[in-house]
Amino acid sequence: MQERAEATRRYLVEAAAQLFEERGYAGTSISDISARSGRTSGAIYFHFTSKEKLALAVIEATLATWPAVIAQVRASSAPALDKLVSLSFTVARAFRDDVVVRAGSRLWTERKAIDAAVPGPFAGWIATVTELLREARAQGELAVSVVPETAGLAVVYAFFGLHTVSDAMDGRAGIEDRLRELWEVLLLALQAEPDPDALLVRVHGPASAPLPA
Amino acid sequence: MQERAEATRRYLVEAAAQLFEERGYAGTSISDISARSGRTSGAIYFHFTSKEKLALAVIEATLATWPAVIAQVRASSAPALDKLVSLSFTVARAFRDDVVVRAGSRLWTERKAIDAAVPGPFAGWIATVTELLREARAQGELAVSVVPETAGLAVVYAFFGLHTVSDAMDGRAGIEDRLRELWEVLLLALQAEPDPDALLVRVHGPASAPLPA
Repeated sequence: MQERAEATRRYLVEAAAQLFEERGYAGTSISDISARSGRTSGAIYFHFTSKEKLALAVIEATLATWPAVIAQVRASSAPALDKLVSLSFTVARAFRDDVVVRAGSRLWTERKAIDAAVPGPFAGWIATVTELLREARAQGELAVSVVPETAGLAVVYAFFGLHTVSDAMDGRAGIEDRLRELWEVLLLALQAEPDPDALLVRVHGPASAPLPA
Repeated sequence: MQERAEATRRYLVEAAAQLFEERGYAGTSISDISARSGRTSGAIYFHFTSKEKLALAVIEATLATWPAVIAQVRASSAPALDKLVSLSFTVARAFRDDVVVRAGSRLWTERKAIDAAVPGPFAGWIATVTELLREARAQGELAVSVVPETAGLAVVYAFFGLHTVSDAMDGRAGIEDRLRELWEVLLLALQAEPDPDALLVRVHGPASAPLPA
């Protein structure tokens, strides 16, 4: 029973995500979600009690996407800077292709309209990026002048900005090309020995081939 | 008469900006704006015809803030990188303190809910930053490895991300400190000779003293 309730919740979260992504929070009603999902409004309220709760569930499902992605990247034996590049492409593709993540992102930008405390993604990403930069420092890969704590902030800012610009420019269709361009700039600044050839492999590799496990 | 109509439009844009900034686009009605401004709904519709048009006027007033700010910075005789730092602090303060700019920013993030084509700020900022970096290159201030066109994109991404994070973290109260920290990272990457002392003057100067004309 518990399992079936979980499956229904997940099904409703995905149906709601489609609508939130298309129409936003204010533009989506429980009866729209009922029509899209083929479940009664009563069934939806049974699982989520309000539209706010359903929107929060979509945002939480988005945030819950990352720990597994991060764990997979961290488990690889690649150098830390490669892990960081790889992680950024995986996240960018999710923002382009995954309707729950896209809806979570739109809802997050509309969070002031949602009558509930909406958790933010920043602290977690800042911690993850800073940790990978510290690892790169320990591996001797980081330029001497780079401070992992402040560079981590700059990298996170640049990524959030890239996502905003990509969303506004072309609905994120061109996000991988923009990400490659951004890494060419960032790696020149971060790497201890910014060898142009190694840099190109680092940036252009992960887009076509996954990291070795 | 023309002048008086202009003054009324500006007054209504500011009253509407206060409400859009507090409550967002969906949460603000023409009758709220009527109550706040002391003008009848009929008078508001006479000037703007719809809530969409009024929201667009707030966004356009925000975008119209920048040409004068950019012209003032460009007119100074300071080195191009100092102009860029100075410009970024002026813009950050406007986003923290100017209710029209804050409202324009919120409306822009809510643009999908506004039934009208909303102009974006990115192309203009990318052009301005890239031009200043080209000027810095001509002045011999830019590190050899830096390409103004791609570095300009990275700087713009980082700034938009900084604004998003600052807004989410503390309503932009701490934006100047975050901006100083970001410049310490960016200037290390951009400057031809990243002398730590010159860098600190560059970053910490503009916050307290304006550029020489």
